[in-house]
Amino acid sequence: MKFDFQYYNPTKIYFGKSALDNLSGELANYGEKVLLVYGKNSIKKSGLYDKIIGILSGAGKKVTELSGIKSNPSYAQLLKGAELVRENNIDLILAVGGGSVIDCSKGISVSAYCEGDPWQRYWVNFEDVDNKIVPVGSVLTMAGTGSEMNGGSVITNEDKMIKNGRVFPADVYPKFSILDPEYTYTVPEYQMVSGVFDTMSHLMEQYFSGDDDNTTDYIIEGVMRSLINSARAALKDREDYEARSNIMWCATIGLNTLTGVSKEQDWEVHMIEHQIGAYTDCAHGAGLAVVSTPYYKYICRDGLDKFVRFAENVWGIDTAGMAKEDAALAGINSLTEFIKELGLPLTLRELGATEDMLPKIAESTIPGGGYKKLNAEDILEILKACY
Amino acid sequence: MKFDFQYYNPTKIYFGKSALDNLSGELANYGEKVLLVYGKNSIKKSGLYDKIIGILSGAGKKVTELSGIKSNPSYAQLLKGAELVRENNIDLILAVGGGSVIDCSKGISVSAYCEGDPWQRYWVNFEDVDNKIVPVGSVLTMAGTGSEMNGGSVITNEDKMIKNGRVFPADVYPKFSILDPEYTYTVPEYQMVSGVFDTMSHLMEQYFSGDDDNTTDYIIEGVMRSLINSARAALKDREDYEARSNIMWCATIGLNTLTGVSKEQDWEVHMIEHQIGAYTDCAHGAGLAVVSTPYYKYICRDGLDKFVRFAENVWGIDTAGMAKEDAALAGINSLTEFIKELGLPLTLRELGATEDMLPKIAESTIPGGGYKKLNAEDILEILKACY
Repeated sequence: MKFDFQYYNPTKIYFGKSALDNLSGELANYGEKVLLVYGKNSIKKSGLYDKIIGILSGAGKKVTELSGIKSNPSYAQLLKGAELVRENNIDLILAVGGGSVIDCSKGISVSAYCEGDPWQRYWVNFEDVDNKIVPVGSVLTMAGTGSEMNGGSVITNEDKMIKNGRVFPADVYPKFSILDPEYTYTVPEYQMVSGVFDTMSHLMEQYFSGDDDNTTDYIIEGVMRSLINSARAALKDREDYEARSNIMWCATIGLNTLTGVSKEQDWEVHMIEHQIGAYTDCAHGAGLAVVSTPYYKYICRDGLDKFVRFAENVWGIDTAGMAKEDAALAGINSLTEFIKELGLPLTLRELGATEDMLPKIAESTIPGGGYKKLNAEDILEILKACY
Repeated sequence: MKFDFQYYNPTKIYFGKSALDNLSGELANYGEKVLLVYGKNSIKKSGLYDKIIGILSGAGKKVTELSGIKSNPSYAQLLKGAELVRENNIDLILAVGGGSVIDCSKGISVSAYCEGDPWQRYWVNFEDVDNKIVPVGSVLTMAGTGSEMNGGSVITNEDKMIKNGRVFPADVYPKFSILDPEYTYTVPEYQMVSGVFDTMSHLMEQYFSGDDDNTTDYIIEGVMRSLINSARAALKDREDYEARSNIMWCATIGLNTLTGVSKEQDWEVHMIEHQIGAYTDCAHGAGLAVVSTPYYKYICRDGLDKFVRFAENVWGIDTAGMAKEDAALAGINSLTEFIKELGLPLTLRELGATEDMLPKIAESTIPGGGYKKLNAEDILEILKACY
């Protein structure tokens, strides 16, 4: 597996204060029927909706709208979108919003012409897409999930009470994504810091695996350091364009597969958070913040050298003269302090969990892990440690 | 300019010991007529030629060959390739070799159907390509130039005695590149270290500009550190697969535009080396090694904070208590030591330059620079410092 990978990411990124100026040029590559997908009212409040409608109409497009995409996009919404694509013979799905809107748009893209039940085929059986894929473009308004430059699509099937995610191959990635950091200024602070920690967690999930000397780990360390510095700057000044730009680009780079090449990866923090979310309906970034510290404390003895490296290279801790375990814990403590700086929770209680939920969460979590393979008992220990 | 960029890199990378297994799958995407472009005899000696001919014939391809591409690919060879493309109605140009072979193949790709003189239009006037572009794929045998995942094409017009380079947009990038680090084992050590330093120089040229807090700089620092560590490991054991993998991937990442986004960049070391090469015919990496140290010593006072950061984050120097200028120079001295470790030259004399050449080199170099804009007098000072 190691040093044996494929890398292919054909999403075109337009980044900066004038990024939206490129939309009409991109629209020229597609037919006239556009499905505009967005969330609640925020893009109307911010004026972005009007701008985009203006550009679409200037480009002579016939626009169908699908609005109200939830922060956990539902399968029912996806099916509604798929129906709109078929009915209107849509040429391009334009997602305007954060990761949820883009995830849902990719789901619509692969489902519209799917024979059989898309949920069962693509989000349960993880089948390859064998039908027409409707191209997706995106205008990003929130930094965190990285959905703007990857194939990820997390969908909640509300009838079945299941949230499933999968990563589609490159032909499902957005064809283009427009990233103007200024659009993220109006995102509430709690969502901003959740996005920061979501990105941090993506990076840690990829970083904490393997004991090889791997270029990808050096890149991840750089992205983590940049993210931490810019998060601190953005907490001081929400409209610090430089900081918000770095946060946005770190989020994109942090899950566009570049920071995963040649890595075994972990993802157990996400597995546990997934089930915490199912029981508490907490915000994703908040759930990740709660689980991360106790999880890494629990497993760090099995990947000690990497945790020492994390302390040194990410947090700048001088570990000379420290026992390895102390150095590893010092790094994890810096992570805890960072979570506090962000104002994110550190306990399950703060997420609304009750003690009786813990065994249920532990048992329903998919077991696994990077440096240590966890079973339900291990996971219960971790949950108790952050209750 | 800052935090205002486009990023689009659609090259598909197959990396690892079994990367060549993907060639036949890729070949299926193109018509039956293939132009195979390669250098001298090394791929025949190594057996790679036979393997590739086997795969091409197994895929039912009709193969035309263009061999003997020089390390500075000539415009005459390019025109010969363009003629072969037209005569044989070529569907795919398959470049097997290092940067020179791939650079030449891109040149053939844009020139075959060019109306008018390709040299004048594309390498002198830097016009946009307005004709059919023949797709290029590559099998890389040497790490350094990054040509396998970018639009760079440096061509020497031997009649006019001019070497010009340009960067074509993404539709000229290789469609796919096959990177098996084992193919680089047979490259002579001098070429291996030249490739390492070429990559290091690409990274420094991008890094040494700007005084902003920029995610790209953090990524570059990580790639530099990985490259340095792996170069040291490869010098001990040429067949250290991990080290050769990292070196190969650092070279690709180091010039695939990712490490350049949102950066003003410098490139004056390359400008000076270009003219040294014209007068001495030195190897590119060797010329870069000679110029780098005196160049950075000459300009570092104009970008002092960045050079201090280079000392700390790339070379791990504890600069606490040091004057900034001393810290900056300590970092540059570490670079000099690294050049010595690689066994590369540090003086123009070693490249065969004579004293009378220095003013000519200085005057013919395109002036410019990142932190300090140089004129011919400045460049002459730098050349004297490394004579």
